[in-house]
This record gives sequence, structure tokens and C-alpha cells, in this order.
Amino acid sequence: MGARLSDSPLYAHLWGTDELRAIFDERSRLESWLDILAALARCQAGLGIIPTAAATEITQRARVDALDLDLVAAQTRATGHSTLGLINGLQRILGEQAREYVYYGATVQDLTDTWFGLVMREVSRIVARDTAAIERALLDLAARHRDTRMAGRTHGQPGAPTTFGLKAASWADEIHRHRERLRHGGPRWAVGQLAGAVGTLAFFGADGPRLRAALCAELGLADPGISWLTARDRIAEFGHLLAMICATLARIGAEVYELQRPEIGELREPATPGAVSSITMPQKRNPELAEHLDTLARLARSSATVLLEGMVGQHERDGRSWKAEWIALPEVCLLTGAALQSARTIVTGLEVDPAAMLRNLPDEQLVEQVLAGLSAQLGKHRAQQLLHEVLRESPATGESLQARLVELGVADAAQVKAWLDRDPVHVAGLMIDHVVARGTS
Amino acid sequence: MGARLSDSPLYAHLWGTDELRAIFDERSRLESWLDILAALARCQAGLGIIPTAAATEITQRARVDALDLDLVAAQTRATGHSTLGLINGLQRILGEQAREYVYYGATVQDLTDTWFGLVMREVSRIVARDTAAIERALLDLAARHRDTRMAGRTHGQPGAPTTFGLKAASWADEIHRHRERLRHGGPRWAVGQLAGAVGTLAFFGADGPRLRAALCAELGLADPGISWLTARDRIAEFGHLLAMICATLARIGAEVYELQRPEIGELREPATPGAVSSITMPQKRNPELAEHLDTLARLARSSATVLLEGMVGQHERDGRSWKAEWIALPEVCLLTGAALQSARTIVTGLEVDPAAMLRNLPDEQLVEQVLAGLSAQLGKHRAQQLLHEVLRESPATGESLQARLVELGVADAAQVKAWLDRDPVHVAGLMIDHVVARGTS
Amino acid sequence: MGARLSDSPLYAHLWGTDELRAIFDERSRLESWLDILAALARCQAGLGIIPTAAATEITQRARVDALDLDLVAAQTRATGHSTLGLINGLQRILGEQAREYVYYGATVQDLTDTWFGLVMREVSRIVARDTAAIERALLDLAARHRDTRMAGRTHGQPGAPTTFGLKAASWADEIHRHRERLRHGGPRWAVGQLAGAVGTLAFFGADGPRLRAALCAELGLADPGISWLTARDRIAEFGHLLAMICATLARIGAEVYELQRPEIGELREPATPGAVSSITMPQKRNPELAEHLDTLARLARSSATVLLEGMVGQHERDGRSWKAEWIALPEVCLLTGAALQSARTIVTGLEVDPAAMLRNLPDEQLVEQVLAGLSAQLGKHRAQQLLHEVLRESPATGESLQARLVELGVADAAQVKAWLDRDPVHVAGLMIDHVVARGTS
Amino acid sequence: MGARLSDSPLYAHLWGTDELRAIFDERSRLESWLDILAALARCQAGLGIIPTAAATEITQRARVDALDLDLVAAQTRATGHSTLGLINGLQRILGEQAREYVYYGATVQDLTDTWFGLVMREVSRIVARDTAAIERALLDLAARHRDTRMAGRTHGQPGAPTTFGLKAASWADEIHRHRERLRHGGPRWAVGQLAGAVGTLAFFGADGPRLRAALCAELGLADPGISWLTARDRIAEFGHLLAMICATLARIGAEVYELQRPEIGELREPATPGAVSSITMPQKRNPELAEHLDTLARLARSSATVLLEGMVGQHERDGRSWKAEWIALPEVCLLTGAALQSARTIVTGLEVDPAAMLRNLPDEQLVEQVLAGLSAQLGKHRAQQLLHEVLRESPATGESLQARLVELGVADAAQVKAWLDRDPVHVAGLMIDHVVARGTS
Repeated sequence: MGARLSDSPLYAHLWGTDELRAIFDERSRLESWLDILAALARCQAGLGIIPTAAATEITQRARVDALDLDLVAAQTRATGHSTLGLINGLQRILGEQAREYVYYGATVQDLTDTWFGLVMREVSRIVARDTAAIERALLDLAARHRDTRMAGRTHGQPGAPTTFGLKAASWADEIHRHRERLRHGGPRWAVGQLAGAVGTLAFFGADGPRLRAALCAELGLADPGISWLTARDRIAEFGHLLAMICATLARIGAEVYELQRPEIGELREPATPGAVSSITMPQKRNPELAEHLDTLARLARSSATVLLEGMVGQHERDGRSWKAEWIALPEVCLLTGAALQSARTIVTGLEVDPAAMLRNLPDEQLVEQVLAGLSAQLGKHRAQQLLHEVLRESPATGESLQARLVELGVADAAQVKAWLDRDPVHVAGLMIDHVVARGTS
Repeated sequence: MGARLSDSPLYAHLWGTDELRAIFDERSRLESWLDILAALARCQAGLGIIPTAAATEITQRARVDALDLDLVAAQTRATGHSTLGLINGLQRILGEQAREYVYYGATVQDLTDTWFGLVMREVSRIVARDTAAIERALLDLAARHRDTRMAGRTHGQPGAPTTFGLKAASWADEIHRHRERLRHGGPRWAVGQLAGAVGTLAFFGADGPRLRAALCAELGLADPGISWLTARDRIAEFGHLLAMICATLARIGAEVYELQRPEIGELREPATPGAVSSITMPQKRNPELAEHLDTLARLARSSATVLLEGMVGQHERDGRSWKAEWIALPEVCLLTGAALQSARTIVTGLEVDPAAMLRNLPDEQLVEQVLAGLSAQLGKHRAQQLLHEVLRESPATGESLQARLVELGVADAAQVKAWLDRDPVHVAGLMIDHVVARGTS
Repeated sequence: MGARLSDSPLYAHLWGTDELRAIFDERSRLESWLDILAALARCQAGLGIIPTAAATEITQRARVDALDLDLVAAQTRATGHSTLGLINGLQRILGEQAREYVYYGATVQDLTDTWFGLVMREVSRIVARDTAAIERALLDLAARHRDTRMAGRTHGQPGAPTTFGLKAASWADEIHRHRERLRHGGPRWAVGQLAGAVGTLAFFGADGPRLRAALCAELGLADPGISWLTARDRIAEFGHLLAMICATLARIGAEVYELQRPEIGELREPATPGAVSSITMPQKRNPELAEHLDTLARLARSSATVLLEGMVGQHERDGRSWKAEWIALPEVCLLTGAALQSARTIVTGLEVDPAAMLRNLPDEQLVEQVLAGLSAQLGKHRAQQLLHEVLRESPATGESLQARLVELGVADAAQVKAWLDRDPVHVAGLMIDHVVARGTS
Repeated sequence: MGARLSDSPLYAHLWGTDELRAIFDERSRLESWLDILAALARCQAGLGIIPTAAATEITQRARVDALDLDLVAAQTRATGHSTLGLINGLQRILGEQAREYVYYGATVQDLTDTWFGLVMREVSRIVARDTAAIERALLDLAARHRDTRMAGRTHGQPGAPTTFGLKAASWADEIHRHRERLRHGGPRWAVGQLAGAVGTLAFFGADGPRLRAALCAELGLADPGISWLTARDRIAEFGHLLAMICATLARIGAEVYELQRPEIGELREPATPGAVSSITMPQKRNPELAEHLDTLARLARSSATVLLEGMVGQHERDGRSWKAEWIALPEVCLLTGAALQSARTIVTGLEVDPAAMLRNLPDEQLVEQVLAGLSAQLGKHRAQQLLHEVLRESPATGESLQARLVELGVADAAQVKAWLDRDPVHVAGLMIDHVVARGTS
């Protein structure tokens, strides 16, 4: 049966979604292939290349349910040809005439690349929907936590205050760019292929371009204008965009994973009712969804790299690239689907703990304010050096810092207090407003 | 001194161009950094944050030539801080006041990310120029060889006729899409960064957003609207586009490499006067440029993957991603520059041998024509099976095939001749026309 | 049902073998997991940790056939826990006592990592068997074609003579090193895991190490001596070795692919009876197996990289790495199995055409002999320069070269003839003898 | 001049060590190449292939100091040949006879691959030294902190107690296996190459194998027995081992990075006197070394992948793989050198805070003990379910848990106390002892 754990009844839910699997599973793929063959036949009939009756019969009878899939599989293995098994299967379910006009003048890649075009369109639709929902949820978090202060962390170390809203806005901003990329790239990916044996469409004579245009129109795809048998940039670009989206989701996941540490305790992914984190440590609550986003991003990146490598194809058809895409393109789509689903769950149900955020925001994180104040007075580098020396002596609270600076005669108490009282996240709020306004416009 | 062969006086020309090196070498990078600092100072003076005189002095005196680079390097090592060495160097060359207002309120990443923005803009310009030139040269090849017949090869095996023009048009079409991607992505990449310690611009109080907008405008970059310290998708997207361009050039290179085999002899990369292919085999002429395009594409892909991985950053600043970009982004730019230069040389000077192409185009490659003809008569699958049987017996010339089909009673001699006489590359010409027309519009 | 094309009834044969699938499919994996649980129970009984009767019952009744797999899958999804579904399934098929002692004190990773140990041992056995067979077949080719001359090609250009035997010997030599690596690495990989919640085996008190040792012994695995929950180097090393093996097979495949070009025609992969290369170009015979080796190597490399990345794990358990391994380790094993099977078919049935090899070996390839002769007389660099000049004028046959050198007065006719008569592949034969002697010793 | 930041005077220290740079910089590389050429000449003289006087002169006068490097570089560019520039440079510094016998019958790859053999031997020596030192330091940490309790963390969440000693022992154990791999692989890598134009050593007639053996012996390398021009597994294996070592060091770094978070505060990398973490946040102390280990591991992995890809070479020489190795092999060596140096600094000066570790180890982490105790009494799954229910109500301290269990009547107070009093890290100590004993034996 299936040897891939990603496909197993037990674990498939971790590596795809029902919706995505319904695009890629064998039956759906064959269904889609047959739809393409039927569309081809109708277009050929429209141009007088094959009899209309044949096209009608193909449209009506070339259904997966009718196929003997065991025979198709056996013939695929026996012939070593990617679609001859299917063709032989079709011969059995079509009448004497129609069977001569199915898959007429087309090649494997016409079928599979056109299917890729449909797949990329369909997956783009899902990704657009889910990234929009995620952006909305993030903008909502950003707005709600516009003024929720927390420690900004650099190199893993708390440094100066930020807001949770700004973090969420930064995520939303990144997702927003992905949505733009989806829109820009869509017309490049959602194309059909009708190229024939070596890309010249020779089988169809002068009808070739018209037939390709008709086929693409029939399927709702754009006409590529020229055969693209070994021009695989579309696939590579699409796969990389999905891998980038997974990476963004993994960035969100990493933040949740780290801030859910009980020693920090600022965020928590939503609890799933009935979920068990550990059988030997029953008290635990693990950020399983957040963690898994990183796993998915790694695997997606790995598949995207295969697609990029696949661009270096030879001559008029290169099975090395193209067959690798058969594995890597569906993989990156399925993984992205799973990542989007988990990420939606996380961002819409995220537990934010403003009290913990405040607790983790010690006084000394306001040092930047003091540095700004002192800089205006002493110059930046002198102020910096002075602060370095003061802070090297002992960790500072606002109070102790105030006292020390007064003692050193570089500022009076009121000045320091004024610096410390400045709102350190004022601009963070403005940036959030900007992102929210754009996102909802 | 440098330990990277890619940077060595002997071999650097293989891994970059003078033009690209003039962007990335230490002196240019420092020059660019100082320009950014001067622009920042001017903008700060404009907003009344620092004295105008300080900004003027910084603009005039903060020049690389004035810096003691040994001291800068020594201080960089001693402090373990990426730019404190530079700051200390600047202290020495600026007057008492100006030295307090240089690098005022900014952080390393403000400097280096803004530099990345400038770099991506500048490199985009070069890539746009070179891809446009390459597309033009390819369209020229496509037009000139619109009707130059050659064997179309699939899986490394000649199969049916195509034209060299169609091959060139397919390359041009792929380059054309890259140019579109450059245009679409440009506004996303050419942005500045002014984020401060943790992205809140707290140092500047309410002036922050105005200052960032002014700095970006001063440098000719777009304003990102929000800090993007750990939002690295721009870099990943840009790096991947360059790697895709390298892959396309490697595809062209692979074709030249393979078709330059003397057993095939259809293409030859231009000979470089004075070049020596082999010292032990003086008679050889190797496709060195074409071959090297593949090497460059591999390395570019590898750097692009590092950039993609870098998107998964933590918190408000993550040195793991950002420092890896310091290596990988310049690398992919330099490699792409080298690849574009070689590819331009190849495509503008490519030696095409139409006679050899014709010689490698045996009669039996017209079988698709006969299949099309027979299919119209017998149905496709019946025709196919019949041809398979006929051809299994012996390789076919047009003549022998004609004779055999007449003998089998499935066609008369005139019919077969008519099929063989059809122009198998008629549609190839139309596709070329389409691509050429679009490219020159 | 499965969404991965690699697992589909139609195409699974391209991406794995029955033998490998029988290791990895869900039923086999569960079978193996239950065997481990039963072994654990027996060892625990042996140490008095659980009642002997419980261990006996677990051994007898914990069979996949008895499990309600739908329930197991549903519970896996409901609990979000990797093995709680299985545990719940086991509760249903075990008696009141035994059900309390199954999976006693172990964690998911104890089960899955021990399974990985068994898998790596088992797959190593298959790989060792197949690489041995491939090496034998290659040594046989090397011996048979010890003196079969052909063009040595560098940078895709024929240069000087070599033998097909030397090519085969070079392949065999590389495979030989892989076999050595398998032997060296085996003891590192074939280990069990019993670590408990955080690696301390706390559940079992002081019995822990004895229990781990017993479990490993029972399963025929080595005792790791210490928990290795986030020490994943074993997996990364194993995966990389498999990817290297795939790369070697792809190197062989690339050679067949290129030399099977009809313009060269020196090698042909064995024809598969009934195989059809192309439906639109019935005359074609594609090197499908050879080509596919490259596809497999790409995908294997991509999975190996995931495993290498997985080494950077955090703390005492890191799901990001470990779950990625669940996908990448089986994947690289399955792909390697497929590659070995195809490669065996190719190397045992390879069609070698010595006549074509000779035909492609023009006179001018003997120039190296002349260079050696002239060098001994004139010095190397003088000889080289002279030959460069002579050959720049016109391509050389042995005869014309002889004439020209005599004319130039640098050698007499007899000398040149003697140089040309030297056996250029004498040492190739000696190297083959060396590799063959070692391989069969 | 150098355009790579990794090679810049300011930043090179982050991407290599002086020791490694002294192997790879242009001058050293040329020095090493000339040593190889001199060794070759001496061996050739020994076999009577060239005059002894020539060999003596080459040995004495072929020094980098004597070369006109500008001319060498210019000629390298002009000829497009990798070593003809060098050869031309040598012509200038050698006498009339010697200049005819330098680089006699060898090719570029003979030189560069033999250099690779030397490099891999030399780098192996450094890596062996540093990994040994790191293992010793880790074993020392393991022994010293044999009983230092801390929270074991899984999925980022503290779960049950472990010891810092066990963590250090796990690192040491992984490093120990790398040292074993170094020993196993060494004889495979430290080989020379003398292959000639296409691997047949034809230039030297029957003397070829003797000459190769002599050259290897002279340089302290093993004789490969057969040319390995496109058999690149040695390089791929070596590069991957280095990348694995970097990954292990990055695992150590990640632990330090995470546990240095002030919210956790259990570890701190050693402070570098004079180091400044942040100019705008002067109070900060960042884990810069630890963080950088991850950056280095990413880049090393990326180069290792290039080397693995390089194994799929064509024919008798394939510049695509071989030139990519020119970049990727030195890169992975330099990065590994930098990583080892930083890791040594970290592990020898690591600040461990046992008090913080204890503070982060809450009572509830002893739940596993209670589970073990209850399991022995009620059965595992019943015990587990009961504990899940109890803990779902409220987080537990040892006391509250004791009270609740007594209340539920499943244990008496003394029992629960006894369970809680069990040493949870007893076996951790035994594992440490095992690793330490092996490491120091």
C-alpha cells in the first residue's frame, strides 16, 4: 500500500489537508487528466480535427469510475510509458470510433503540464484564500494589541520595549507581500501546454496554435504562446513562493514556540480539546502546531530546491527535471496546505498574555530612552560610552540609573525622569496603524 | 590575503565581474555605508534632530579614503561588534561636534539592510540591462534561424524536426518572464531600513517615521512603512530570482555544451582568441563558457537556498539569518553577474551550423507526419500500433516507409509522399513570430 | 487515497521497490513497532519490571491484524499524539493485565528511533547486497572490455583514447568505496533507543541501562550507551551515504544517457520487452532507466539535506528535526532502492558497441602520444607550442601530422610512426587489473 | 579588491581562521601547487623521465616569491586556461632546460586534485585536533556537572529533570562519533591524483603507475590505484562530514543561545573582554558566538550539498562539478575552522549556573516518578489516565499531588513521598560515567 508516511491513514493529516489531497490523489489526478483529454477532444472537434461524435463520447464516457485501474497500473508498468496504461484503459471504455480520437496528437507532457497549470491555479486560489484569512487575523491581533507592551528581543536577549501589535503587524506585512506575489505570478503559472512531440505541434499542421488557444480557453488557462517543454521557470517560481509562505508561517510558529516557554509565558498556541502532549509527562502542554510549522517549512524548502534545479533541462524534453517535478510540486503544495491550516488555527486562537509580557519587560530596557536623552545633551558617542561604563558596574533600574546620572552631574533628576517617561512604543503604534489601514483598504 | 578562490587575483574573473565587484568589495561597501550615514545625517539635520553643521561635516569628511582601515578592522575584531570598528574610525576623522552625530540612533541592520536595498536596486539594474541584451540576441537568433531545421531531441534522442529558431525563442521567452519578474519585484526590494534597536524607532521619538521616509527618499529607495528586521522575504525572493536567471542561462549553456560535441556539431560557443582548451590535447576546443554556466547556477542555487532558510528568523533581530545573508546575497549577485556576462558572449557570438543540423535530421524523424496522416485515416491508436510494428522491423527512411505502407495497403504512395512533404516546422515559425513580435514591441 | 504520486498504484514502481515498500508501508511499520513493544515487554519481564504473563500476552496478541486501524487513525488525529492512537488500539486487543504493561515507560521516540535503527540495518543489508552485485557486474564489464578502445571525453569533447573497461572500473571503484562506508558506518547506525521522557530513563530507576541493553540485544541492535534523542548524526550520515550511492548510480546513468545518443551510439541501456518510448514518435528508444537515475539522485540529495539540517536540534527532544526525518529517511531509502534496482538492470544488461566506440575515435586523438614523443626531444613546452601551431592550421590525421613534423624538421617519419604506434591505453589496462583483482579478492 | 565579505579585512575572522586561511589563500595554494610540481619532477627524475638537473632546479627555483603574479593572473585570464598562466610564469623563472620539464605530462586536475588530497589531510588534522579538544572540554563539563540537576526540555517545554552533565555527555558522544568518522574516512581522502589527459596516464607510457605511486609517496598521500577524475565521492564525503561537525557545534550553540535567555539564565557563553553587544542597548550581553555557530552550519550545509551534487559528473573530466568544488570545498573547510574555534571558546569557558537550573526545575517535573510509582501499582495506562485527570484540574507541586492521590485512595502519603524522593537522574549519572570512561580511555 502506500509506503510514504505522509500518505498513511495514521499520519497524512500532518502533511496535507483533505482539500489538497482531493486535488492530488490518484483518482482526482486521473479525473483531471480525463477532463483535459475531453476538453482537447471538444476543441479538436470544434476545429474539425476529429469527429464531433467522438468528442461527445469521450466527454461522456472517459470517467475514472469506468476505468479498470488495475489494468491501467499494470499496463503502465508493462510499457514503461507514463500514460500508455491510461490510454489502453481508455480503449476499453470507449466505442470503436471514439477510442481512435482520444489523446489525439498529444503527449504525456501536454497532459501533465496542463494539469500542472490547473493545479497551480487551484492551489493559488486556496493559498490566496488562506493567506488573506491569516492576514486578517494578524491585523486583528495587531490592532487589538496595538499598545500591549512587551520586550523586544534581539539575539535572543530582551533589549528594549516593543508591542505585540508590532510583531503581529510585521507578520501581516510579510503575508501581504506574498499575496501580492501570488497576484503578480498567477498569470505566469496558470497556463496550458500543447506542444506535441518536440514542441512544434507538427501533428496538427497549421491548426496547432488555434487548437492550443482553444484548449487553454476551454480550461480557463492562459495560452503560453509558445511550447514550454523544458522552460520550467513557472514551476520553480511557484514552488519557491509556496516555500516562502511556509517560511513566513514557520517564523510565526518559531515565535509562538519560543514565547510559549513557561519561563517566558507570553504566548500560547490554542489548546486542542482532547490533545495529549506527552504520555510520560501528563502535565505538559506542547506547542505542537507551532513546532510543526518549522518541519513543514524545511520540507517545502527542500522540494522548492528540486524545482529550481529542474530548470536546467536539456533539448526539447528532459525527463530528469520533469519527473522530479511530479514529486516535488505536489509535495510543496500539500505541505503548504497543511502549514496554512495550522497557521490559521494558531493565529485565530492565539492566547496572548499581556501581564506576562509586562512582567518580562524590566526597567533596564528603557535604557535606549536615556541614551537618546543623553545623546541630545552630550553627543551620541559620549553618551554611549558613559552609559556603557555606568551599566558595566551594575544592572540598572530606572531609579538607580537616574541617581547615578545625577551623581555624575550629566543630567538632573527631572530630565532623566522625563526621558524614562517617554512613550517608547509610540512609533510602533503608528506603524501598526499604517499596516492595518493598508490591509483593510 | 583573501582565502576564497572566488576572490583571488588569478580566478576572480570566473566568479564575478569587475562591475559587480565594484559594488561589493570592501572599499565600495564602506563607501556606500558612509553615503548612507551621510544621508541619514542630512535627513536628521533637516528634521532638526542634529545640527546642520554636523551633517555637512559628515557628508564632506566621512570618506573611505580618510579612514584608517587597519584601525577599523582591528577595532571590529576587538569589540566583536559589526560596525563599532567603523564608528571608532569615524571618530578619528570627524571634528568634535560631528563625531557625536554620526550614526545617530541607527543600528547595524539599519545600515546593512539599507545597503542591501541599494545593492538590490543596483544589481537589478545590471541584470535588467543584461537580460534585455540577452533577450535581444536570442530573438535575433530566433529570427535568423526561423527556418533552420534541426532534430528535436527528447530524452537525449532525436525524434522529430524542430528549428533552431524555436529553441532560441524558447530561451528568449524564459528570459522575458524573468524581466517581468524583475519589474514586478523591484518595488518590493528597493526599500530602506530604519528600525532602531528593536524596530520601534524609539530613539527618535515621534520623528521616526518622517526620518525613515526622508532617508529612503534621499537614497532613492521606497519607504517600507514598517521595520522589517526579521522579515527577510525580500532578500529570499531576490536571491531566488537571480538563481532562476542563472538556471535559465545554464539551460542555454547545457544546450551549447551538448550540441558542441563533435559527434553532433550543431553549435559552438564563440572562440576566444588566445584561449587554450587543453595543454596535453592541443587540438581541443572546449565549451568552457557554456560549461561554466552550469557551475555558476549550482552555486547560485545553493546561496538562494540559504536566503530562503533565512526567512525563519526569531524575535526582533536574528543574527543567524542576517549574517548568513551577508555571505549569500553578495555571492548570488556576483555569480549572476558572471553568468550574464558569459551568456551574453555566448549568445551574441554563437556559431550555428545549419548544415550539421540538417545532417543530423534523418528521414525517420518525419514519422510523426506519417502518423498524423495515417491517424486521420485509420484512427490514432490503430495508426500508432501499425507504425510501431513497421518500425520495430527496421529503421525507416521516408522511402522505405512509403513502400511498406503501400505494401500493407493502408495508404497509397502519393498519400505518403504528401504526408512526408508537409512542413513539419510550420507552426514553429508561427511561435517564433509571436515571441519576436512581443519581444520587440 | 494517497496523495503522493510516489505512492500511487500507477507510479509507485518508479519511486521504490516492493522490497523497500514492504519495510515502510503502514502495516509493516506498525508490525515492526509492535515487535519492538513486544521485545520491550519481554525484556521488562526478564528484569522483573512487568509480569511475565503480560509480556507473553503482548508478544502473542499485539499483532497488526488484530488492531482496529480505523480507530487507531481516528485516535491519532483526535489526540494529536503520535502513538496514543496505537496505544488506545492496543488496549482493545489486550487483556486487562497486559494492557497495563504494554508500551511501559517508553516514549514515542523510543519506538520510532529504535525502528529507525532496525530500518537502517535492514536497508543497509539490501544496499550492501545490491551494491555488491553492481560492483560485480561492473568489474565484469571492466574485465570484458579491458581493451575496448573508445574516445576519452573531457568537457564533453573527445580528446584522447581510453577504454570502456577503465570507465567501468572507475564506476566499480567508486561503488567499492561505498561498500566500505557501509561497513564502517553500520555499527554506528544499527542502534536502539530507550531514553524515556527526557533521556534519563527515570521511569525505570536503576534498571534503565540494563533494560536498554537487553532491548537492543533482543532486537539485534547495538546499545548506544547513552540516550540520543537530539543527537541525529547517525540518521544524517546514513541518509547522506544513500544519497551518495544514488549520485554514483546517476553518474553511470548520465554516461549511458549521453553515449546512447544515436550521434554517438556507443552504449545502450537494455531494452525492456514491451516498453514504449514514445507514442507520437514510435521509432524512438529512450534511455529511460538511465535518465531516471538522475531524477532519483536529485530527490535523494534533497532528502539527505533535510536530514543534515535535522542535526541542529534543541534540548532533550525536538520535533522539528525528528518529524522531518519521518518523511526524509524513508524517502531516501525508497528512492535508493529504486535506483539500485534500475542500475542493476542497466549494468547487467548494458549493450556496448565496440565498433561505434572505435568509429568515434579519430586519429587526432593520438596527438598526446606525439606530444609525449616530441617533448622528450624538444622539451615539453616547446613541443606543446609547436603542436598548437601545427594543429591550429588544420585538423590532423596521424598521416598529415607525421608529414608536417617531418617537413618542420623536428622528427623523422619513423619516429612519428613509433609514437603513433605506442599503445595509449596500456596503463588503463593495468588500472583495470588492479581494481578487478581487489574487487574479487 | 576581494568582493567576498568572508575575505574582507574587516570580517574575515568570522568566516575562517588564520590557520585555515594559511592553507587556502592564493599564495599558500600556489606554494602548495609548486611543491607538488617539484615533487612530480623529482619523481620523474627518479624514474629517468626527466633529467635530474631539471628536477633539482625546479625544486629550488619554482617558488611563489619568484613568480610574477600579475603576469600569471593576466595570462590566466588571457588563455582562459586554469594553469597556463602559472606555467607561463614558471617559464620566466626557470632555466632553459628546467622550463621544459616543469609540469611534465600532468594536467590541471592532477595538480588541483592532489592539492585537494593534501588539503583534506591537513584540514583533517586540524579538525581532529579541535574535535578532540572539544570532546575533552565537554567530558570535563559532563564530569563536573554529573549531578547538576536541571529541567529536561522537550518541544521547548520543561518536562522532567535531567542533568547538565548528561547534556554535555550527549554532545561529547556526538563529537566522539565524528572523530571516528574522521579516522575511518581519512585513508579514503588523503590520496593523490595523477591521471593525465583522460585518466590513462598515456603520456608516461608504462611508467605511469610507478610515477603515480612515487608522487603519492613523496607527498605522504595514498595511491588511489586508479584515476578518479570524475569520481568525486571522496570530496562529497569529506565536505559532508565537516558540515555534520558544524551541525553538532550549532546544536551546542543553539542550547547556549536558548539557555542564555535571561528568562532562563542557565548558561552563558564566555564574555569576551572588550566585546560590545549593542550600541543602542548598552546593557545587553548577546550570545554572539553561539548564534554564529548556526550561521556557519547553514553555510557549511549549503556547500556540502554542492559537493554532493558534484558527484554526478560526465565522462573523463567534467568542469561543472570540479570547478564548483574549487569554491565549495575550501568554503566548507574555512567555515568549519571558524566554527571549531568559536566552539572551543564556548565549551572551555562556558558559564554554568546550577542555581538557576534548580530554580527552573519545578516540583511538577517529578510527575514522571509518581507515574512510575503509580504504574507499578495500578498499571501504566490506568495510572496515566488518573494523573492526566488530576493534573488537568490544577498544576501540581509535589505536596499537592501527594495530598490529591491520598485523597483519591490510590496511594498513601509515605508511598508518594518515596516516589518523589527517588533520584530521577541516577541513570543520567551512569550514562555520563560511560561516556567519560570511553572518552578518556
